[in-house]
Amino acid sequence: MTLRIIAFGAHPDDCELKAAGAAAKWAAAGHKVKFVATTNGDVGHFEMAGGPLALRRTAEVKHCAEILGIESQVLDIHDGELLPTLENRRTIARLIREWQADLVLCHRPCDYHPDHRYTGVLVEDAAVLVAAPFFVTDVPPCPRNPVILYYSDNFKKPYPFDPAIIVGIDDVLDQKRTCIEAMPSQFADKESWQGRYLPGVPEDDEGRKIFIRDWLIARDGDVANRYRDLLVQRYGETRGREIKHAEAFELCQYGAQPSAAQLNELFPM
Amino acid sequence: MTLRIIAFGAHPDDCELKAAGAAAKWAAAGHKVKFVATTNGDVGHFEMAGGPLALRRTAEVKHCAEILGIESQVLDIHDGELLPTLENRRTIARLIREWQADLVLCHRPCDYHPDHRYTGVLVEDAAVLVAAPFFVTDVPPCPRNPVILYYSDNFKKPYPFDPAIIVGIDDVLDQKRTCIEAMPSQFADKESWQGRYLPGVPEDDEGRKIFIRDWLIARDGDVANRYRDLLVQRYGETRGREIKHAEAFELCQYGAQPSAAQLNELFPM
Amino acid sequence: MTLRIIAFGAHPDDCELKAAGAAAKWAAAGHKVKFVATTNGDVGHFEMAGGPLALRRTAEVKHCAEILGIESQVLDIHDGELLPTLENRRTIARLIREWQADLVLCHRPCDYHPDHRYTGVLVEDAAVLVAAPFFVTDVPPCPRNPVILYYSDNFKKPYPFDPAIIVGIDDVLDQKRTCIEAMPSQFADKESWQGRYLPGVPEDDEGRKIFIRDWLIARDGDVANRYRDLLVQRYGETRGREIKHAEAFELCQYGAQPSAAQLNELFPM
Amino acid sequence: MTLRIIAFGAHPDDCELKAAGAAAKWAAAGHKVKFVATTNGDVGHFEMAGGPLALRRTAEVKHCAEILGIESQVLDIHDGELLPTLENRRTIARLIREWQADLVLCHRPCDYHPDHRYTGVLVEDAAVLVAAPFFVTDVPPCPRNPVILYYSDNFKKPYPFDPAIIVGIDDVLDQKRTCIEAMPSQFADKESWQGRYLPGVPEDDEGRKIFIRDWLIARDGDVANRYRDLLVQRYGETRGREIKHAEAFELCQYGAQPSAAQLNELFPM
Amino acid sequence: MTLRIIAFGAHPDDCELKAAGAAAKWAAAGHKVKFVATTNGDVGHFEMAGGPLALRRTAEVKHCAEILGIESQVLDIHDGELLPTLENRRTIARLIREWQADLVLCHRPCDYHPDHRYTGVLVEDAAVLVAAPFFVTDVPPCPRNPVILYYSDNFKKPYPFDPAIIVGIDDVLDQKRTCIEAMPSQFADKESWQGRYLPGVPEDDEGRKIFIRDWLIARDGDVANRYRDLLVQRYGETRGREIKHAEAFELCQYGAQPSAAQLNELFPM
Amino acid sequence: MTLRIIAFGAHPDDCELKAAGAAAKWAAAGHKVKFVATTNGDVGHFEMAGGPLALRRTAEVKHCAEILGIESQVLDIHDGELLPTLENRRTIARLIREWQADLVLCHRPCDYHPDHRYTGVLVEDAAVLVAAPFFVTDVPPCPRNPVILYYSDNFKKPYPFDPAIIVGIDDVLDQKRTCIEAMPSQFADKESWQGRYLPGVPEDDEGRKIFIRDWLIARDGDVANRYRDLLVQRYGETRGREIKHAEAFELCQYGAQPSAAQLNELFPM
Repeated sequence: MTLRIIAFGAHPDDCELKAAGAAAKWAAAGHKVKFVATTNGDVGHFEMAGGPLALRRTAEVKHCAEILGIESQVLDIHDGELLPTLENRRTIARLIREWQADLVLCHRPCDYHPDHRYTGVLVEDAAVLVAAPFFVTDVPPCPRNPVILYYSDNFKKPYPFDPAIIVGIDDVLDQKRTCIEAMPSQFADKESWQGRYLPGVPEDDEGRKIFIRDWLIARDGDVANRYRDLLVQRYGETRGREIKHAEAFELCQYGAQPSAAQLNELFPM
Repeated sequence: MTLRIIAFGAHPDDCELKAAGAAAKWAAAGHKVKFVATTNGDVGHFEMAGGPLALRRTAEVKHCAEILGIESQVLDIHDGELLPTLENRRTIARLIREWQADLVLCHRPCDYHPDHRYTGVLVEDAAVLVAAPFFVTDVPPCPRNPVILYYSDNFKKPYPFDPAIIVGIDDVLDQKRTCIEAMPSQFADKESWQGRYLPGVPEDDEGRKIFIRDWLIARDGDVANRYRDLLVQRYGETRGREIKHAEAFELCQYGAQPSAAQLNELFPM
Repeated sequence: MTLRIIAFGAHPDDCELKAAGAAAKWAAAGHKVKFVATTNGDVGHFEMAGGPLALRRTAEVKHCAEILGIESQVLDIHDGELLPTLENRRTIARLIREWQADLVLCHRPCDYHPDHRYTGVLVEDAAVLVAAPFFVTDVPPCPRNPVILYYSDNFKKPYPFDPAIIVGIDDVLDQKRTCIEAMPSQFADKESWQGRYLPGVPEDDEGRKIFIRDWLIARDGDVANRYRDLLVQRYGETRGREIKHAEAFELCQYGAQPSAAQLNELFPM
Repeated sequence: MTLRIIAFGAHPDDCELKAAGAAAKWAAAGHKVKFVATTNGDVGHFEMAGGPLALRRTAEVKHCAEILGIESQVLDIHDGELLPTLENRRTIARLIREWQADLVLCHRPCDYHPDHRYTGVLVEDAAVLVAAPFFVTDVPPCPRNPVILYYSDNFKKPYPFDPAIIVGIDDVLDQKRTCIEAMPSQFADKESWQGRYLPGVPEDDEGRKIFIRDWLIARDGDVANRYRDLLVQRYGETRGREIKHAEAFELCQYGAQPSAAQLNELFPM
Repeated sequence: MTLRIIAFGAHPDDCELKAAGAAAKWAAAGHKVKFVATTNGDVGHFEMAGGPLALRRTAEVKHCAEILGIESQVLDIHDGELLPTLENRRTIARLIREWQADLVLCHRPCDYHPDHRYTGVLVEDAAVLVAAPFFVTDVPPCPRNPVILYYSDNFKKPYPFDPAIIVGIDDVLDQKRTCIEAMPSQFADKESWQGRYLPGVPEDDEGRKIFIRDWLIARDGDVANRYRDLLVQRYGETRGREIKHAEAFELCQYGAQPSAAQLNELFPM
Repeated sequence: MTLRIIAFGAHPDDCELKAAGAAAKWAAAGHKVKFVATTNGDVGHFEMAGGPLALRRTAEVKHCAEILGIESQVLDIHDGELLPTLENRRTIARLIREWQADLVLCHRPCDYHPDHRYTGVLVEDAAVLVAAPFFVTDVPPCPRNPVILYYSDNFKKPYPFDPAIIVGIDDVLDQKRTCIEAMPSQFADKESWQGRYLPGVPEDDEGRKIFIRDWLIARDGDVANRYRDLLVQRYGETRGREIKHAEAFELCQYGAQPSAAQLNELFPM
């Protein structure tokens, strides 16, 4: 059976950072994956902004999608301005319905950036309604409420990230690294957010690109270490201990509620 | 003293499912109860939608209200489109003020459907303001902030349902069953949501009606079993162990904060 | 040169009533025409409403589009609820940009129904911006502001309909009649708006359909007679006098301003 | 036949100023009249504001309604904050449907105060929809679109007030004067808007009240003189020349379109 | 007496194009003038957009203000996204109150760009309310409703621009030319709107700047010629005939209504 | 190093109640503190409302600011009507940017009053964006995301107040008492909220003022006792046990995350 997965991230880099590994594996297995950025990322750079930056970032994630073998879309909503409106709820619901998604990924509603939080809220608000026959009438409903999962994060309140499934990504790490390198407006420009704010960033362009990329990939190492038990449980003692990088996902209580075994089937090994 | 209770549910069946038992008992004891659906339920059916469905459902809950001896109102807001706007906040505040409510019931803001969650948010947002003299000027304020409670649900995050009071409803279960049967657009039609999505639903109309009704009533059995300790504490060891069906309620921290003894007085035995 | 024409009507019948004749002629000449209903028409019937009515009407105008040889789209916005929001402005602008329209048709902002008026306002508000490179970033701009025209109407204030161009439609009248017959939810059902409100409507289904259709077509006769001078001016004395039915259009001052000769070239004879 | 008339004014004094005479006559003839203020008038005074002022003004127009023998309602919307939202459109449509109005009165959309203009826009936007069966579902539709008329004003653009009907009010002028005197927060307080801004206002309370009242009544004299021809046409040469004070109304093109004779029947002599 | 004038234009160049001449003269006479752009102009360029363009344009109009001896402010609202919201109404009302304006200038609500139209609507909607003591409470009211005037435009519907006053600007034309040259993002860049769309624009930078500047100044020549009668009436036969460039203004009916003589006093010769 | 602290409270008394002690100490040490009320408090009194009450309360907190040696601002938003809109998000972000804040204080998003909750949400939503160069373009960004902390409260869900830092305020308690006395519209009038609702309030004006003041100050005693461990940890065993009154603050996870030692440096002893 071919799975259909749709992932929502707030900016044109979030799906990539949080789920590029899983996506590469799903795609390699013949499943259909789509990444959607819910804003166009048009204010997160110190030199460019507005349309030119939005177009550049759209091209960057399109490139990532080619690297991963998936589809990609960027919603033309200003960065920093995503709100849980009815219009946006309908947009998210339509995208899930059009994709006839089995699985939906998004941020938790307690992530650090308002666009992240409201992306989470919007997906939660679209839940159930993607199966309602007449909530929107121009796209047929999903046959049932999909399984919804949140990306990992480091936030502790109201409760810490609580993973239900983990995916080792060492075998696709090169693809993920290449993705990150394909987004210089986010992770390589001297005047990118990370280039400007991250401590210890090298002065030269090549050095900066490698430094930021490795800093990001190191976060997938933290995920593997933090949720090592889950890796061992899923991959067995040996392989579970060996995996160096991973992506983890928490089950959203407003989507379908698969058993642990069912969830295991839905995610690539 | 006559109590005045107002209950808000997202769709024309939610108050009935969550509080018909308690309502029947309050009404029998001479208290005044009103059920308000915050949306008109106009998309949750596979054959009908819009106004005709809204009218049908309004008539159904009106029938339920007669069965229970209470009042009923359906707000003409599209199903799936309830938002925590200022207009809606004022509407909820006016309804509570007009009813001069001592007790207010609603969903938790972490229920599965956005209309449920925002019904909870709206009641929370109206709290305090129902006692503010000039928040609205066309309906006099309540003399004090009422006691607000949430219906039971099965959600675990950010924290599990935490009941403060429980009501055994075995003696009014027939009335609740009759209510459920009085809402065929929700619980009996072949093309109703439950008729379509619930696994194992019989093909014939009468069988389907009984099947869904009993499945719903079984959930009140789960409540009784899950919160058995509360039943024993309230009804004593013998009766507390015997009660088969119950409705439970969690205290909202934004309303008045009665003592356990006061809360016990406010709810029927 | 192939022209690209996009027409906006408030409900799934408005473009058809006001411009089916011109559209049929453009299409026959190889030009590309698209009709867009800005609402889904989901409250204008006395027996059905909501999603089922929206789907029925979407199918009806799709059928009309086949009859005319054009494309068709229905925006999933509730009937009676269209507002000149920024989201809707962007939607209209994107449709015009995607179509790379040379010509845009819409209602005047002084028509009788709020959805008509706000369709006019939205097109006016999208004008100029369809050529702005970065107003939206997911659809390339039009190379220049298109020519915008209003459909004919009978309103007198703030000033009467003021046609700039007229099209005789006698030779395509059969297609227009067939279109109208293809929209029974609007023009034939006993419980359609016209079936209910139009005086003198026959009781039998076939009679009603013919009666309403002919009443509508008679309005194109009024247009021909009222603006006879324009017909004579465009078609010459003989043919201008003979034309029985016509569609007329007023030039919107916020679009491109073609000369009379240029306008004549843009419209079919 | 008993007529049902509903009049919308932006503040709690506008219906009274523009239509108290006609209302008194309709009421005396047994027709049903209701005045609705679309805002609560809570910022138009130099000493009071907010709720206390809203309550005072609500009481004042209630008193006026008793003087005129009609009903009265004040919508609890802040003065200066009325917008043509969907919520307000529905509120206006519901009021017209509840009243099952034959006649609706309102400001022109080109009056001097934004609340006046948007009251006009809202009534226009509600037109047609008051007869749509499912635009709102909690109040039955009007059997047909009512006749809608605008109050007189002095504005010239986009076109001057264009009366379709005029009513001589000399015989009910005492009632109108008493109404004006019953609204001291608007027309008598030293710190009322008129008490503060009108040139030549006397210092003493009684003098001020009379001065402002007479200045207002003089405006009805201007109406009589400006549209003398209409008075003569309606009341005949003799009586038409004698009438000193009048109220005039322009026909809105978005409501039902009665003939001159029909309109004459609808208004009192 | 020192006059206080505040002018609202939709983009950072509109006040300058329409009123730089009058402003220079007022300023030279010791009156206080402020230009406010109601949007930041962040999409009207083919190479830049967003914040960097907004900052560039803010700097450009600041430079213009220095040239003219006036003050300048740019509201940080996205270009193409200005709406007549309550928040914007309050912002405009506060600016007028803070400036304690005697005179307010703005676009007509029938100009070609939605930001122009809604700038006009917003100023109209703020009218009266700038004198209401408690519409906003953080800025004291104006002692009375100011005189409001519209800039000239070429639009004909619903009625043509109807000037009440005209100002010959030949003697300050150098300042106006210098202003236009100080806005290269609008009028000189190869990738500016005019640089891209205006027919016949030279290829070289200097040539383009001069060409566009002169094309704009020629429009002030059109104003002088079109309203020559007004010039003669105001400046006398000789001077009135000689004036080559002028700025004209129409009186808004929602502000104070000065006599022709009073208006003449308010504007510079 | 001079710290810059900005505190947001929902009404003109909230910052004062929750942080006057810390503010007095910061100010005494030469740091810059600003209190911002996010609404004007115009409905929380039983005798006055609207503008006059807003102005009175603005004057009261201005007086408090003088007592504390800090700055003060009241946003002109109606009490009970604060929503997490984009306009308000921008307003909060601009205030933080203008203040170039190192520290930001606000309510938790789980406080009892909707204005409190949405003040918390708005500050959270502004977090990150205060450092985004082009989220707003009229105020330069903060050099980095500030440290954000919540005021103490008694709410338990979704989790109890979790203080990260505590400040003993016995040495500035007189200033805090004087502040409270400087807000009679909140804490002394017979018709103030507390004067009306607090049980056991004396009848005479002076008695009432003292009673309410002492009741409020007693809450700071509760804070000291409840979080005694934190006091001991910060001030040492002896002084930590002696402190009678305190203010405590919880670290928001969406701002900068200082170490405990860094946090200790940021707050006065």
